[in-house]
Amino acid sequence: MNKKVTRALVSVSDKSGIVDFCRELNQLGIEILSTGGTAKTLAEHDIPATEVSDYTGFPEMMDGRVKTLHPKVHGGILARRGIDDAVMAANGINAIDMVVVNLYPFEQTIANPDCDLDTAIENIDIGGPTMIRAAAKNHADVAVIVDPADYASVIAELKSSNGLSHQTRFNLALKSFEHTARYDTAISAYLGNINGVQFPETLNLQFYRNQTMRYGENPHQNAAFYREKTPANGTIAAAKQLQGKELSYNNIADADAALECVKSFDDQPTCVIVKHANPCGVAQAGNLLDAYDKAYATDPTSAFGGIIAFNRELDEATAAEIVKRQFVEVIIAPSISAAAQTVLAEKQNVRVLECGGWSSDNQAALDFKRVAGGLLVQDKDIGKISAADHFDKLRAGLKVVSKRVPTEQEMDDLLFAWKVAKFVKSNAIVYCKNGQTIGVGAGQMSRVYSAKIAGIKAADAGLDVPGSAMASDAFFPFRDGIDSAAEAGITAVIQPGGSMRDNEVIAAADEHNIAMVFTGMRHFRH
Amino acid sequence: MNKKVTRALVSVSDKSGIVDFCRELNQLGIEILSTGGTAKTLAEHDIPATEVSDYTGFPEMMDGRVKTLHPKVHGGILARRGIDDAVMAANGINAIDMVVVNLYPFEQTIANPDCDLDTAIENIDIGGPTMIRAAAKNHADVAVIVDPADYASVIAELKSSNGLSHQTRFNLALKSFEHTARYDTAISAYLGNINGVQFPETLNLQFYRNQTMRYGENPHQNAAFYREKTPANGTIAAAKQLQGKELSYNNIADADAALECVKSFDDQPTCVIVKHANPCGVAQAGNLLDAYDKAYATDPTSAFGGIIAFNRELDEATAAEIVKRQFVEVIIAPSISAAAQTVLAEKQNVRVLECGGWSSDNQAALDFKRVAGGLLVQDKDIGKISAADHFDKLRAGLKVVSKRVPTEQEMDDLLFAWKVAKFVKSNAIVYCKNGQTIGVGAGQMSRVYSAKIAGIKAADAGLDVPGSAMASDAFFPFRDGIDSAAEAGITAVIQPGGSMRDNEVIAAADEHNIAMVFTGMRHFRH
Repeated sequence: MNKKVTRALVSVSDKSGIVDFCRELNQLGIEILSTGGTAKTLAEHDIPATEVSDYTGFPEMMDGRVKTLHPKVHGGILARRGIDDAVMAANGINAIDMVVVNLYPFEQTIANPDCDLDTAIENIDIGGPTMIRAAAKNHADVAVIVDPADYASVIAELKSSNGLSHQTRFNLALKSFEHTARYDTAISAYLGNINGVQFPETLNLQFYRNQTMRYGENPHQNAAFYREKTPANGTIAAAKQLQGKELSYNNIADADAALECVKSFDDQPTCVIVKHANPCGVAQAGNLLDAYDKAYATDPTSAFGGIIAFNRELDEATAAEIVKRQFVEVIIAPSISAAAQTVLAEKQNVRVLECGGWSSDNQAALDFKRVAGGLLVQDKDIGKISAADHFDKLRAGLKVVSKRVPTEQEMDDLLFAWKVAKFVKSNAIVYCKNGQTIGVGAGQMSRVYSAKIAGIKAADAGLDVPGSAMASDAFFPFRDGIDSAAEAGITAVIQPGGSMRDNEVIAAADEHNIAMVFTGMRHFRH
Repeated sequence: MNKKVTRALVSVSDKSGIVDFCRELNQLGIEILSTGGTAKTLAEHDIPATEVSDYTGFPEMMDGRVKTLHPKVHGGILARRGIDDAVMAANGINAIDMVVVNLYPFEQTIANPDCDLDTAIENIDIGGPTMIRAAAKNHADVAVIVDPADYASVIAELKSSNGLSHQTRFNLALKSFEHTARYDTAISAYLGNINGVQFPETLNLQFYRNQTMRYGENPHQNAAFYREKTPANGTIAAAKQLQGKELSYNNIADADAALECVKSFDDQPTCVIVKHANPCGVAQAGNLLDAYDKAYATDPTSAFGGIIAFNRELDEATAAEIVKRQFVEVIIAPSISAAAQTVLAEKQNVRVLECGGWSSDNQAALDFKRVAGGLLVQDKDIGKISAADHFDKLRAGLKVVSKRVPTEQEMDDLLFAWKVAKFVKSNAIVYCKNGQTIGVGAGQMSRVYSAKIAGIKAADAGLDVPGSAMASDAFFPFRDGIDSAAEAGITAVIQPGGSMRDNEVIAAADEHNIAMVFTGMRHFRH
């Protein structure tokens, strides 16, 4: 049922659009109640409004901490029309049919690095959420507006229908409770951090819808893609789609895997091709075209229909080569040159994403894994090893444990392989040579099969294993993994170490003259 | 700094423990303000309290919708001690140093299947959250208690310290904002559902901490395990640990994978062994011991250190055989017989979980996949095919597409293999015979390698492939997968169908006299 609006309470922190909105309300004959700053703004624009303190007879006090927390305000919002009319009359309460409130910007306040605890606390709004919640509860009779983006449609409906429909009031109420839930979640997360609590008793999470999708991982599953409030540049959530079909669930998941992997390489132009959540080719070279060519060569079969990510602006030559050579689902890069865009535009189905540059691939964040009835929550794996890190008992790093020390080229390949292994599903074994993956053994229940697969794939792709470096995402439990690596021609191995049988494994490396390096860091990824 | 408490406002929906708590407050000389039902309860127990309406001079009205929304209450809570004393005195406001409030049980209300929208709305508390939030904001001077579980420690501290410490007040404030965030999240989720919105604009999620863990997927990641408010029986989140070391992140993830897989088998005693997120052995038989024996035989190497799940009460004989035969990380079953518990107690490190019986493995829920800066959200994959489901264009089911129709035994094995394939990481190929997995090809970037791996693993385990059924989680893009399956001795194939080259694939099956069934349903799982 449509409800006419005769009186609105307006008290906004974000004043954008409020003058025009209230001018329209005024022209529609709607009486306006207002507070402090908002009332002043309206007065400056000659829009008549009654101060709430004049209406309640109680002063605004305590630097604004108590303005609207009064029964004449809340009775006016919460009264059940037709039931509470007598008690309203007896207590001088006027019905308030519309509440226009938005909150002190708590999230913006704490985003300021200079914000101290006192400032944050002072920015916790008490009166605002109360009015919003009261109006949302009583949406049978009251409309509540928390978002300036809704002003225009509300005015339009008031004009066309002489009131607001139940569906409009319901939708506004829903939006309001989403808003207050988000607000208190932000506050509790902030206070929890102050308290040094990484994993609070109640974990409240919010995400904001980017898009709904035609379906999820499979066609019989519905799905949507949500982002954090402000996703960082260089993430899939912040990426802008320049062309192509709508992104699917699997596109987004794989583009994320590819992008996160390619972000771990910064020294040279690098290409990562992902299929079914695993890198099927990773390579670096002096330019993107060569990097793509080498990454593709690792596994041309899997690259078909893959997701391709780059760590540099995509240039025309590389774009042209991709669309000439293969069917590709998604291309993602920090930027796409104008000439590359022109080339890609000829294949309108290809999804092309520009994610922006990243400051670091090592941004702390929470990682989630869903289980039935619950959620596993952990720090994102941002562990990194570089050539300068020396492993000791306290710190991950590099430690040569074999008699033979890796050559400079071997060490480069070991570090390259190690970075790739971090993004391959466990158990992960990766063979690499000259900045190119030679074979990727992914997702096996025992490590020795991952090693076998890496070898089989290298052979099928016609790539020479001898002289390659091998990375293992976790330690070798037995020497058999090293023995078969030696047989395949592997000359250098990088792995966390830490097995009960490390001595046997090291002895095997020495027997085969393999250079072996421990990292002290594991990279399971399931 | 410790703060003395001279006046408390008490207004609780959950009255457990409130009488004893207020008696203690009274004996400590703390003045009590109270409302409606709470005031009545206290009066019945001869605990002196002032009614809020007597204090404010404003009546409680609108069937309790407006009770405490008054500046004399909120000024008393929000006043900054030492700054606002004069304005308090001028307006007859008394300082309130403690707020004891818990909310109308909205979540319980809507959990009642008879709850209609009006009842739900009436149960949205407005005054309560306002007092809680005001007190939590002003925790510099005010203590706020939302959980009866905190009464005892608060009384103890009041007695021992003649007040409450800053840390206590801060912790209570944090808990309060977690509480109000959760409350409004529940309301917005409820209203969103009414509105038929599966994926609202803002996704607010809450989970409750079950345990923090020593570390996450890897030792350099911190982690915690959260549950939903009320996880269903038969889920990892509801499981009770009977013995063994603390559950790790990977234990929980793998136990979930094993349990969800074993739940899809109900007709016979079944065993699932999981390693690195994949089933490495699944089998059913007339009793659990035989089922375990057959599941183990699929891949004894991977079963070492695995997670073992059963769909029946674990009996003594099976428990004894497991601990005799292998190193096992976790055993999970709906229940563990007393005799089995005695046997397992001899291996105190083994984690033994009892998850309770389940009504159905097909409970709708949201599935999440974390990506950088966002979250992919989808319906959990609860798609199922049974022998009675016939596939047509509108509905998934079974459709024989080859000339040869599967024998009854083949059809049983096809359906068994199909259920297993759903829980194997994509691309998934599963060989099965007589209710036993013969080879599991998991997690490959192209389907043909998953088929190769299944064959290699069967050979290594000394299991005969000829006569086996094969399931593929998605369609075969080319006929090569069928050709190599025939070479290995596969006689029946189940797969979704839907490839551009289905005709070629069907022709290949017919050439090899393979019986092939389409399901019209895909089961990607990455």
